[in-house]
Amino acid sequence: MSGQLFGLGVGPGDPELMTLKSLRLLKDSPVVAYLAARGRKGRALSIVEGFLSDSQERLPLVYPVTTESLPSTAAYDALIRQFYDESAEVLATRLQAGQNVALVCEGDPFFYGSFMYFHDRLADRFPTTVVPGVCSVLACAAGLGTPLVYRNQTLSVLSGVLPEEELKARLRGAEAAAIMKLGTNYRKVRAVIRDLGLLDHALYAERATMADQRLCALKDLPEDENVPYFAMILLPGDRWEATS
Amino acid sequence: MSGQLFGLGVGPGDPELMTLKSLRLLKDSPVVAYLAARGRKGRALSIVEGFLSDSQERLPLVYPVTTESLPSTAAYDALIRQFYDESAEVLATRLQAGQNVALVCEGDPFFYGSFMYFHDRLADRFPTTVVPGVCSVLACAAGLGTPLVYRNQTLSVLSGVLPEEELKARLRGAEAAAIMKLGTNYRKVRAVIRDLGLLDHALYAERATMADQRLCALKDLPEDENVPYFAMILLPGDRWEATS
Repeated sequence: MSGQLFGLGVGPGDPELMTLKSLRLLKDSPVVAYLAARGRKGRALSIVEGFLSDSQERLPLVYPVTTESLPSTAAYDALIRQFYDESAEVLATRLQAGQNVALVCEGDPFFYGSFMYFHDRLADRFPTTVVPGVCSVLACAAGLGTPLVYRNQTLSVLSGVLPEEELKARLRGAEAAAIMKLGTNYRKVRAVIRDLGLLDHALYAERATMADQRLCALKDLPEDENVPYFAMILLPGDRWEATS
Repeated sequence: MSGQLFGLGVGPGDPELMTLKSLRLLKDSPVVAYLAARGRKGRALSIVEGFLSDSQERLPLVYPVTTESLPSTAAYDALIRQFYDESAEVLATRLQAGQNVALVCEGDPFFYGSFMYFHDRLADRFPTTVVPGVCSVLACAAGLGTPLVYRNQTLSVLSGVLPEEELKARLRGAEAAAIMKLGTNYRKVRAVIRDLGLLDHALYAERATMADQRLCALKDLPEDENVPYFAMILLPGDRWEATS
């Protein structure tokens, strides 16, 4: 009998935003795997560690590159693919031995999450359960106190990595939007928003729901600010009939 | 001292997909308000009622119309606006009297949720806290076992209410999409997806995470099926480098 793989969404940062189901399955799991940058703890582990017992194995899967020092695209793609292949085999070894493995995922496992690469490699080979989580986009909206998308509006979730012209075209047609993955893309994204006349409408969030969160209007954030990769900009949909 | 308003996301349906935070604030709240169609229990109440004690007041806010018998758009807009105005005053009366009120929200409060209309009317008048929840889109992806959106792909969340041509244009530019609010729009949405050559790629979900959930490939669902309003179609993003 092989073990089961669990992809557990553990929410955006505040451990209290874990679901009851993820918490139950986390506590039941002898092996708790997590992704981490070299020399760092890993955000998903930080979220769950207060709930773990000493008898549970922590199994780090350490990225070979960081967002701060990326090699060329081709080299990065080869490196990261090899990392996912090898890390998936680390988990497969445990699963083949009959151990259940919980891979904890910041936010939601299937929403831009690294878990997807493990799912692609393992879900056909082992029984797999995915528990959805609160995603960062909705955590940012809640923290900012801004309704995000009304009635029949379209919500577009975009990556700040996209080229300027593509970002502009996609935002021009959007009714509500979230732009993720800012980091060094921040200046470009901000310029696109300004050019589209949307600066007064945009909101900024980083580390939403965590103790050191930062939430503000985008126009109050300097153009040359250094912002983290895991920050985002929201363009909420227009209010519907807020007043009669 | 006025009371506090809590907009609690309670997730997509399975009570175990509530967050620890929503559960704590729910249990602390003397008044638990919820939206419901006439003669029905209300899905948010169904999700939370197992956690409530007898001493907590259940406060229903009953929609004047149902999705099955909608009046004309203008009449609907006037009716529903009046309903939100009056219901907000019901909550305001409790808040002014110093009672805390939790309005429980299926999914997430700010993601197409009716809570937004109460937030628009009350958040400037009373201390308001919004707790994000697991939204239906991510619950459907988890249930279907399909990674939804990879790396720098754009996710578009669309309403099935949109006219055929607008749906077609928006889906043509999408890399990953969720089309919500099916109901009587199902046939139209399915035709658009077929016309775009995406039928083999599309997945269908209703009541995801609940005991009577239905999850299947869209091509396996008959064209003339009667589907509920709270059903959706997912078009997951293409796998990234699934195999090396």
